[in-house]
Amino acid sequence: MFALAAAGADKIMLVIHGGAGTITRRSMSAEMEQQYRAGLEQALRTGHGVLAKGGSSLDAVESTIRVLEDNPLFNAGKGAVFTHEGRNELDASIMDGRTKAAGSVAGLTIIRNPISAARAVMEKSEHVMMVGRGAELFATQQGLEIVDPSYFWTERRWKSLQQDLLKEKKPQAALEGAEEKKFGTVGAVALDRSGNLAAGTSTGGMTNKKYGRVGDAPIIGAGTYAENESCAVSATGHGEFFIRWTVAHDIAALVKYRGMPVKAAAEEVIHKKLAPVKGEGGVIVLDAKGNFAMPFNSEGMYRGWIGTDGTPHVEIYKD
Amino acid sequence: MFALAAAGADKIMLVIHGGAGTITRRSMSAEMEQQYRAGLEQALRTGHGVLAKGGSSLDAVESTIRVLEDNPLFNAGKGAVFTHEGRNELDASIMDGRTKAAGSVAGLTIIRNPISAARAVMEKSEHVMMVGRGAELFATQQGLEIVDPSYFWTERRWKSLQQDLLKEKKPQAALEGAEEKKFGTVGAVALDRSGNLAAGTSTGGMTNKKYGRVGDAPIIGAGTYAENESCAVSATGHGEFFIRWTVAHDIAALVKYRGMPVKAAAEEVIHKKLAPVKGEGGVIVLDAKGNFAMPFNSEGMYRGWIGTDGTPHVEIYKD
Repeated sequence: MFALAAAGADKIMLVIHGGAGTITRRSMSAEMEQQYRAGLEQALRTGHGVLAKGGSSLDAVESTIRVLEDNPLFNAGKGAVFTHEGRNELDASIMDGRTKAAGSVAGLTIIRNPISAARAVMEKSEHVMMVGRGAELFATQQGLEIVDPSYFWTERRWKSLQQDLLKEKKPQAALEGAEEKKFGTVGAVALDRSGNLAAGTSTGGMTNKKYGRVGDAPIIGAGTYAENESCAVSATGHGEFFIRWTVAHDIAALVKYRGMPVKAAAEEVIHKKLAPVKGEGGVIVLDAKGNFAMPFNSEGMYRGWIGTDGTPHVEIYKD
Repeated sequence: MFALAAAGADKIMLVIHGGAGTITRRSMSAEMEQQYRAGLEQALRTGHGVLAKGGSSLDAVESTIRVLEDNPLFNAGKGAVFTHEGRNELDASIMDGRTKAAGSVAGLTIIRNPISAARAVMEKSEHVMMVGRGAELFATQQGLEIVDPSYFWTERRWKSLQQDLLKEKKPQAALEGAEEKKFGTVGAVALDRSGNLAAGTSTGGMTNKKYGRVGDAPIIGAGTYAENESCAVSATGHGEFFIRWTVAHDIAALVKYRGMPVKAAAEEVIHKKLAPVKGEGGVIVLDAKGNFAMPFNSEGMYRGWIGTDGTPHVEIYKD
């Protein structure tokens, strides 16, 4: 362990996001901003700790996302938004850039850390994607931590749902103190000492979602993608657009087939393809040399990165 | 209507598949082969009828797939395989190459034609993907035909499940008269007179699937993809590989970013990427000029095409 930690010659890198949307300086109190920064830094330090000890990018992605899932500020795990029926339905996915192994879950209501359920699907089953009760049964059998659905209840998200329900009844009603737009997600991409990439994404979906709606977070190629020869990607935004534009894989395809740097590829998709159709959101991307980018076309995106030196960098606004 | 039918200057094309797997001449009786050919021809003529009258590629794809769903020979709609618990859980997706609009459903148990449910999600909701009971509620509200789950029961598929369950208990038991391998799917890609592409896929998934497993058929970018500027794709095969390799969008990406013809792009993915990792299956691909291909790396694939002249062409085996 110590020898690995001391070896440290090769680059490690971790990039995260905590959701994109209407996030502006004037809508954010100093106290709230401080809480978000602290939450993102904690997640970055956790993942960095894994990588610095020679841990895998998969372990770093999972442990980082677990921290964000456990933090009620972010729309994933505890802090997830509510469905139209007042439930919390959680989606997540993870992908190994070395093997293209992938795991995905959707519609979970009793698994504390959906990202770990996605990883269990990847490593302990012959399947890639499981949904609903079947996925919960599998996660339970794998020994993942089960919680009562009330664990996911938070006052802030409950109020968001009530606002949304009110808006449906009275579309003209001015909504004072409106929450940031209703999509949000957390995600991480990591590069480990062995040069392997991984990506993961976890979300509570959209406030007031109906009919078993599934967004891009659990869709391999849309919200999550990783392959060592191109890049690792995790997305956040208006999921329907990210599915239709196959955003995560499209960025990887621009890298592998057009030879574009990850930054240019990600900006091409976010600004030139999604922005014109009002497909709001952003991505984090990382390649096997440690090059990364965090473009978004919304007003803000909770995001950050931490490299070999272990100094966390956190950004929230556009400027 | 008549004027449109008489206009007929522009090319129309419809390509379909009815699943890939262990399909060999020696495993197929003459009578069975005749039934499959008749089923595929009926589907081709139905879709061609829509296109020849000036109908849209979306209408052609939907009506063609409905015919295949209603035919118990194919693993979609009636004729779907059984889950481990002895249920039929149906998945489908559809995509419009002109607008990149898409719709997808997974885990349906009471909707007679899942492809029409996918289209309703695309056209009548703000979402792309719905799963389970929520999706069924939506489809019911949209007026789609509801059936008792027993509608999907067929003796042949029930026996397949029993064989699989037996095999789990006695892995060494020789299985005489084993069914073709347990994946199967139906799909269609179409080009209409206006030059618009569409793609759709529908499946009962894998025999003996567990835990709410979802394969590639309802995943936009994996089992289904369509965009006028590259191509329309529908896949069939071992879904987990098709998700991990983002097969449908990867073929489209090779066309749009490498400038490859659809045939070369599809063969690259099926033979050079999937075959080496034993990712068994095939795809149908079609571009806006009417160029198409139907490559597969399994022993056979039920497939066919019909062009402007209205003559159906059906193939089953490799040779």
